[in-house]
Amino acid sequence: MTYNVGLIGWGTVGGGVLDILSQEKHRIEQRCGQEVSIKTIVTRSPSRSRSQNAGSALVTDDINVILNDESIAAVILLVGGTDISKEFCIQCLEAGKHVITANKAIIAEYWDELFAIAQDNNVILAFEAAVAGSIPIIDSLRDGFVANRIDGVEGILNGTCNYILTMMEECNLSYDSALEKAKELGYAEADPTLDVNGMDTAHKTAILARLSFNTQISMDSMNIEGIESLSAGDIESAKRLGARIKLLGLAQRQENGISLSVEPTLVPITHQLASVRLNNNAILIDGHACGPSVLIGQGAGALPTASAVLSDTIDIITGARQQAGPRNCNVTFESLDIIEDNLNRAPFYIRFVVQDESGVLAKICSSFSNHSISIDSVNQSTGNDNGEATIEIVTHPCLRSSLSSVINELGSKPILDVVTMKYLL
Amino acid sequence: MTYNVGLIGWGTVGGGVLDILSQEKHRIEQRCGQEVSIKTIVTRSPSRSRSQNAGSALVTDDINVILNDESIAAVILLVGGTDISKEFCIQCLEAGKHVITANKAIIAEYWDELFAIAQDNNVILAFEAAVAGSIPIIDSLRDGFVANRIDGVEGILNGTCNYILTMMEECNLSYDSALEKAKELGYAEADPTLDVNGMDTAHKTAILARLSFNTQISMDSMNIEGIESLSAGDIESAKRLGARIKLLGLAQRQENGISLSVEPTLVPITHQLASVRLNNNAILIDGHACGPSVLIGQGAGALPTASAVLSDTIDIITGARQQAGPRNCNVTFESLDIIEDNLNRAPFYIRFVVQDESGVLAKICSSFSNHSISIDSVNQSTGNDNGEATIEIVTHPCLRSSLSSVINELGSKPILDVVTMKYLL
Repeated sequence: MTYNVGLIGWGTVGGGVLDILSQEKHRIEQRCGQEVSIKTIVTRSPSRSRSQNAGSALVTDDINVILNDESIAAVILLVGGTDISKEFCIQCLEAGKHVITANKAIIAEYWDELFAIAQDNNVILAFEAAVAGSIPIIDSLRDGFVANRIDGVEGILNGTCNYILTMMEECNLSYDSALEKAKELGYAEADPTLDVNGMDTAHKTAILARLSFNTQISMDSMNIEGIESLSAGDIESAKRLGARIKLLGLAQRQENGISLSVEPTLVPITHQLASVRLNNNAILIDGHACGPSVLIGQGAGALPTASAVLSDTIDIITGARQQAGPRNCNVTFESLDIIEDNLNRAPFYIRFVVQDESGVLAKICSSFSNHSISIDSVNQSTGNDNGEATIEIVTHPCLRSSLSSVINELGSKPILDVVTMKYLL
Repeated sequence: MTYNVGLIGWGTVGGGVLDILSQEKHRIEQRCGQEVSIKTIVTRSPSRSRSQNAGSALVTDDINVILNDESIAAVILLVGGTDISKEFCIQCLEAGKHVITANKAIIAEYWDELFAIAQDNNVILAFEAAVAGSIPIIDSLRDGFVANRIDGVEGILNGTCNYILTMMEECNLSYDSALEKAKELGYAEADPTLDVNGMDTAHKTAILARLSFNTQISMDSMNIEGIESLSAGDIESAKRLGARIKLLGLAQRQENGISLSVEPTLVPITHQLASVRLNNNAILIDGHACGPSVLIGQGAGALPTASAVLSDTIDIITGARQQAGPRNCNVTFESLDIIEDNLNRAPFYIRFVVQDESGVLAKICSSFSNHSISIDSVNQSTGNDNGEATIEIVTHPCLRSSLSSVINELGSKPILDVVTMKYLL
């Protein structure tokens, strides 16, 4: 018996899928109880020479070969971006084929539309590879942690950013040099914009929030900040505080809804996420029964991503996924509000560069007090030759809007520069 | 529609199962697509007062009430030990009921027998809770990492031991004081023998090895050492080496078979497992495609273990597990030898306490050289008032049998004491 699969997109990850299927053919077929065959590959460049052999697969640039082939029950969709990829996804689902994808953008942005189409056509839309590569986080939320009320998710979800931050901290590189090194090693793409500006992390955070809280998630009120403006000074400040800066996607259950954010965050070095180095990803799941649980691994790359793609594929081939019922993500169980980021509470770190004159510290402290922000610690450095001093403050949990009010109120003089960062509790 | 479940054993974890089912009734039933009811509870002490309410369940000391009830399709078996628990397990399987258990001993010791009975009766034997509590490691090996050739598993699998080691290191407690503290906090049982002597870790390591390598695993040739004889001096040595001592269960694919061991092991502080503190468990899976992946969480306790029990239960209720086919663990795919521990290679740390006289270091180094063991580093401390000195050696990977030969050859004079520990590569 043979299970025929279509593959759309023969790039890095598509190549990884072909590599694993050929290296581990016997192992995978034992687990599926049948032969697994990539019958057709659709690619924009059928004639380009590649390091993998297509074997018996037909290679074409026409998606209709897959859509019209009734012997193909599942399609692995590895096309990036949103427009064409979404279109291909819908065409495959409507043709009655299960779809396995690594595309986080279409899942995050068109969740309701795509899962409704999948349900109407009685097929599965699987996306383990869309978040954190080989880390089985989607499967764990759907299955391993299923008996839990999930209270929070904290994720290092972008390997490019984590590599850059690790290099800045451990090797004292500037942001630009660290980014260059990431490009050299293939951890950053030629255009790394969506990685370093936080959008990639935001898509993944939205997906994890949706699965964790089973409520509709809109990214509109998510505060999304990247790592582009981080300086060596920020890294040094973190070290002095016994913390590391990580680009974290946070989704947390609050009394009055769900808070969502993506931003550089100070993580105390004793926290499990602080020791996640280089291009690794990591996710902390806080469930009411399991307690804090952390999963760490490779978030990108040909083989790790293909490992996740194939775990979905094998699940679908055996029919196990089709039985998972409401756990297959297309159901919204709860209706929870997304809290405006300004109304979220967290401890913050603020670094003021000020004119070194008397009364500045008093003025700053009064302003915090006037806005009911309680201060956890203050550190003022001695002034430099330019007559500038640095004042660092860590607050107790406070409203982000109150902090904005303080900074607005203090204005531009004697304050020369302000950096704020959220502190992970 | 109602899915009726039997519960055998109403101790800590059984209570946790009842607690979660009552706290998260709505959430769990949404995911199952039907009502879930604990219809019958079998316990030795039906009349004992407990903190949970049995609700509509019949509470009895007669297992036949469950065995003869055709409306009960699955049984949660939470009885410790091996004899009675194994008997109950077989009776339930033979009565055509799925069994979900947290009992690692019966799974590790009677794997072939129990899974054969499950297969003959066309039911599932599920055991996510048997290894590392709430960490979804069984599910991840069966599903998330299924496309990988697993090359190694490294686990901190006993929370009692990890708590004791953390206290010894961070609070300079003696082994006995740390054990007392673990008992006070409920992390160690009144009789902690099977935890601290390594047997509990060995059972879990055997289960992980079986799932990872899909070969028969015998514990006969596994080197099993506990933490009872560790001293403050050992902890200090580890610190000097930039490492921490962890009780690790190791299962590794070698050229000529599988190596298995449980012993206190030096873990460099930069390794992900080194930062796993207190009573947490952690497992590193090294797959050919996913690369090193680490899962960290609570390995024991009422709610974390019940979280795992219920993930299996929900999987069975929806029918997803029944479709997983050969991944349901009852199949042996490969035939790999278990390598005698003496023939395994690893780097080792050896601390000699010696009479402080000339020529001792030369004698020791010659002996290593004679047995073809290459030395990575040597450190000799100045002698103390009793005329004793300490010589510490770290080797390159070598055969354990060669190391034993060195120690035998050196004999008892001028060597006064020898401590050896494996070093994690």
